[in-house]
Amino acid sequence: MKPISANLTATIELPAWLSAVLKQPPDLSGASDAQRMQLAIELAQQNITERTGGPFGALIVEESTGQCVAAGVNLVVTAGTSVAHAETVAIMLAQRQAGTFDLAGQPPRRYTLYASGQPCIMCFGVLWWSGITRLVCGARGEDVETITSFREGPLSADWPALLSRRPNVPIEVIRDVERAAACDVLRAYIASGQPVYNPGSTA
Amino acid sequence: MKPISANLTATIELPAWLSAVLKQPPDLSGASDAQRMQLAIELAQQNITERTGGPFGALIVEESTGQCVAAGVNLVVTAGTSVAHAETVAIMLAQRQAGTFDLAGQPPRRYTLYASGQPCIMCFGVLWWSGITRLVCGARGEDVETITSFREGPLSADWPALLSRRPNVPIEVIRDVERAAACDVLRAYIASGQPVYNPGSTA
Repeated sequence: MKPISANLTATIELPAWLSAVLKQPPDLSGASDAQRMQLAIELAQQNITERTGGPFGALIVEESTGQCVAAGVNLVVTAGTSVAHAETVAIMLAQRQAGTFDLAGQPPRRYTLYASGQPCIMCFGVLWWSGITRLVCGARGEDVETITSFREGPLSADWPALLSRRPNVPIEVIRDVERAAACDVLRAYIASGQPVYNPGSTA
Repeated sequence: MKPISANLTATIELPAWLSAVLKQPPDLSGASDAQRMQLAIELAQQNITERTGGPFGALIVEESTGQCVAAGVNLVVTAGTSVAHAETVAIMLAQRQAGTFDLAGQPPRRYTLYASGQPCIMCFGVLWWSGITRLVCGARGEDVETITSFREGPLSADWPALLSRRPNVPIEVIRDVERAAACDVLRAYIASGQPVYNPGSTA
């Protein structure tokens, strides 16, 4: 086993193709929710094509400027950590970009997270503490679990209401945006023959 | 705003004092759950003393060898991301140490997570996907919320049962280990005058 002293930093790095996309971040100021979601879905599709991870993409838009401040894709296998879901990667990078652990803090800004699939139990919790104020989702959890064998975990059935009633920082939830296109990408992943991993499945 | 191309890697680095502790990782092979928990609580206390974060510590032990393979403390403010709770940091580092996103995968090993406080809604989800097979907690969520104004989020009341019935990789839960000592550290944090941050609280 490697000496533990070699592993004192947790790092999740975007793949080269996504870094290249973000070198000229898209101006989404005039774009609709559907158009922004189409981009999140394109990232999910490219993650399949490039074989860098699972069929999930996310991006975060700062609402006053309409700029994309961060993006993420599922990097669980390539980054070597189960934490690297698309939404969680995007949130960590958006907080780094904003220079704060609290996107709802100072300076007062509003951020929307676009996610090609609805959050799993982990990403729900990450979202809860992030300071994101609006969530737009494509595929539903039942789509993910029906089309693939990826699992969502024990998410409360009333999760959108829990977010919308969140104390201090309510999180508006918009669902089913470009849902069919998001489901197509889930099907494309299965057709690609790439692995559907869940804890214990590699045992 | 910084160019987005400067922020393509999410990084959580342990503070220097904790890195120094882990340069000679403790042999916990003969230690009881209570003794291991005492170490997790000591990390929480030192995180207060060093002013590197909130009053929460965690460590992960590989059960066949009894070696501590990773540790974490709350680094939300210093790492600049709300993801950097003690348990999540420790899990990311343990997966890096093990070289896999699935601690329950190959080679077959069993890992116990010791957490000075019970998991919040986010850390519950992180734990769900991690491959950890046993969780030992000190303070309860109600201790955290009563003694401090840190919040746990909308965790299901039956969260220990959900973990113990987890499909494929059941997670055994042991609670209230060194609970009083863990609560003392929560009180010490409040007495230190350091901030209790929650999303929106910096606004």
